[in-house]
Amino acid sequence: MDAEKLFDLNQNVEGILIYNGTESSNDPSFFYSTQLTRGLFEMSYVFLTRKNLKVITSQLEEETARSEDLDVEVFTSGKQRDELLKEVTKGITFLGINYSGLSHADFLSLKDKLPNKEFVDVGESISSLRQIKSEREITKLKEAARIVSKVGENIPGMLKDGLTEGELAAKVNYEMMKNGATSPSFDTIAAFGPDAAEPHFSGGNRKLKKGEVVLVDFGAKYQRYCSDMTRSYFFGKPDREMQEMYETVLNSQAAGIKAVKSGENGKLVDAAARKVIDSSKFKGRFIHGLGHGVGLNVHDHPALSSQMDFFLKENMVVTVEPGVYIPNKGGVRIEDDVIVTKNGCQVITTAPKELQVV
Amino acid sequence: MDAEKLFDLNQNVEGILIYNGTESSNDPSFFYSTQLTRGLFEMSYVFLTRKNLKVITSQLEEETARSEDLDVEVFTSGKQRDELLKEVTKGITFLGINYSGLSHADFLSLKDKLPNKEFVDVGESISSLRQIKSEREITKLKEAARIVSKVGENIPGMLKDGLTEGELAAKVNYEMMKNGATSPSFDTIAAFGPDAAEPHFSGGNRKLKKGEVVLVDFGAKYQRYCSDMTRSYFFGKPDREMQEMYETVLNSQAAGIKAVKSGENGKLVDAAARKVIDSSKFKGRFIHGLGHGVGLNVHDHPALSSQMDFFLKENMVVTVEPGVYIPNKGGVRIEDDVIVTKNGCQVITTAPKELQVV
Repeated sequence: MDAEKLFDLNQNVEGILIYNGTESSNDPSFFYSTQLTRGLFEMSYVFLTRKNLKVITSQLEEETARSEDLDVEVFTSGKQRDELLKEVTKGITFLGINYSGLSHADFLSLKDKLPNKEFVDVGESISSLRQIKSEREITKLKEAARIVSKVGENIPGMLKDGLTEGELAAKVNYEMMKNGATSPSFDTIAAFGPDAAEPHFSGGNRKLKKGEVVLVDFGAKYQRYCSDMTRSYFFGKPDREMQEMYETVLNSQAAGIKAVKSGENGKLVDAAARKVIDSSKFKGRFIHGLGHGVGLNVHDHPALSSQMDFFLKENMVVTVEPGVYIPNKGGVRIEDDVIVTKNGCQVITTAPKELQVV
Repeated sequence: MDAEKLFDLNQNVEGILIYNGTESSNDPSFFYSTQLTRGLFEMSYVFLTRKNLKVITSQLEEETARSEDLDVEVFTSGKQRDELLKEVTKGITFLGINYSGLSHADFLSLKDKLPNKEFVDVGESISSLRQIKSEREITKLKEAARIVSKVGENIPGMLKDGLTEGELAAKVNYEMMKNGATSPSFDTIAAFGPDAAEPHFSGGNRKLKKGEVVLVDFGAKYQRYCSDMTRSYFFGKPDREMQEMYETVLNSQAAGIKAVKSGENGKLVDAAARKVIDSSKFKGRFIHGLGHGVGLNVHDHPALSSQMDFFLKENMVVTVEPGVYIPNKGGVRIEDDVIVTKNGCQVITTAPKELQVV
């Protein structure tokens, strides 16, 4: 992260304190600013000034932080941690905090620990910086995308009669990690036949049968950066409706990708893809937004949706993922990650997309 | 969840609104109260009264929510969502909110959407209910524990010269899912030799060599409930110091498990285990708390730590996981999940713990 830029966006702020809580309430901005590739750093802080960065953590993560050559302060008790917080922020009145990065309870507790500060929300500016990926970040995102692309190519070879959704998800995860992922970036969705009508289906045990659609939505984490890709395959020849569904979604996705470019409103990109579906027999069946940012979170800012005016910029990385869902029948979704460029975009998830019958 | 109990603990509250944000800021209490086993339900709400429960979600999750037979209100725009929030909370002044479950930014936004309410923090009472597991929850936790136990038994068979940490983590995850896990409950830690000195090591590519310790810390998610187990193995005969380290940690863990019982202070349980390490040559090398709750989060309340007075109760589920870490040399940790009983505890992760040389 470019700390100078963050302070330029918040001229009144003298220091910035970012708190990484626990699993349901953590702040990826902690890792954005520190670039720490390993460790959990639960209940740890980073304190930033224009020129310095200090990690405040427990003994549990000390070794990890030191191995990445950072300025580290280690506490062994809550009391010591609170004293450290006071010490590093001494003399500062206007303290930047990411209001989106910590729970309301943690906010109140921080106010209590640092009673004489004026807290300033720097969440919007951190988010705006995180949306535009640096070269270093793009390298990591491309590697995460390469991993899913490779695995996506091999999924048709994994399909066979009687395979369960859970087994397929297990195989996909295994192949991602074999290919260099630290972990899946979210719970892999493997949905067969009617289960594919639930966009966020997971944890199923349906056995694969001839004629069914196989929807697989999966992502890899590489050095904390995420990819997110969906492919829909057919196990045996699909009926005519499913075939039409596939072609419609594929055309919709192509229209969406074509509409992406720097300066474009995300709402219009969504509209370009939606128009293809809504002018087909599948009108109204595309029941979610077209896409979302990918970065340190798999569902990151910005959203590409009919609900929001949001202007794309160069080096944002977003998904383009239209889908059609018919309850009790099935669904098709096709999703790629793209880097926004000046005149268009670069698609970085490259597994084949033409209709594949296995 | 027993909504009656939650309202009994908060007599002044007329309704409770729980908000499940996105991946870094979500509230497991949403799933605790709804028992929804599938779906992400990002940016969704549950509204509770003593007698009723209503899920407020987007079309994206509608199908999933309906398949689990819940009362569901579906919005297709942010405006519609805000209107629904107003409508369901109409006539209510004192509205319970989980201050630990939503970000400060989301709290401010909710205040803005519902301007005439008095918000009351029900976080502590939800947390206290979540700590005591119901029979239904214990069944799920036991299944999650069974899965890791089974996989733990098979890890020695996976070890061979040149295996990388990443490959081992991939295999462990695969075996967990093959055995019924929805996903790993956290990024699997597989650390060889000196890497095992970082308690939260992950994403490594060290190749296994004879004489090294193999520390594997892994967990399974089963219907959203987590397990968390660590085993340390030796690939080839360890040197005397590592052998002593293993025996010390094993004795420490036995002392910790022995100290667990309903009514006991977690601080004393931590002390019982810590005493074994601190009266050995490894004094001061046990650099974290003894354990934590497991439930819908893998690091859940309560903590067993020297820092906190916390009294254990029947049907809490906690980990007992002492460790010893020597930078540049290695580390050993042994971790089990236990259910607190009236007079002791039941260990539910059952993979062998005697020193194993592969």
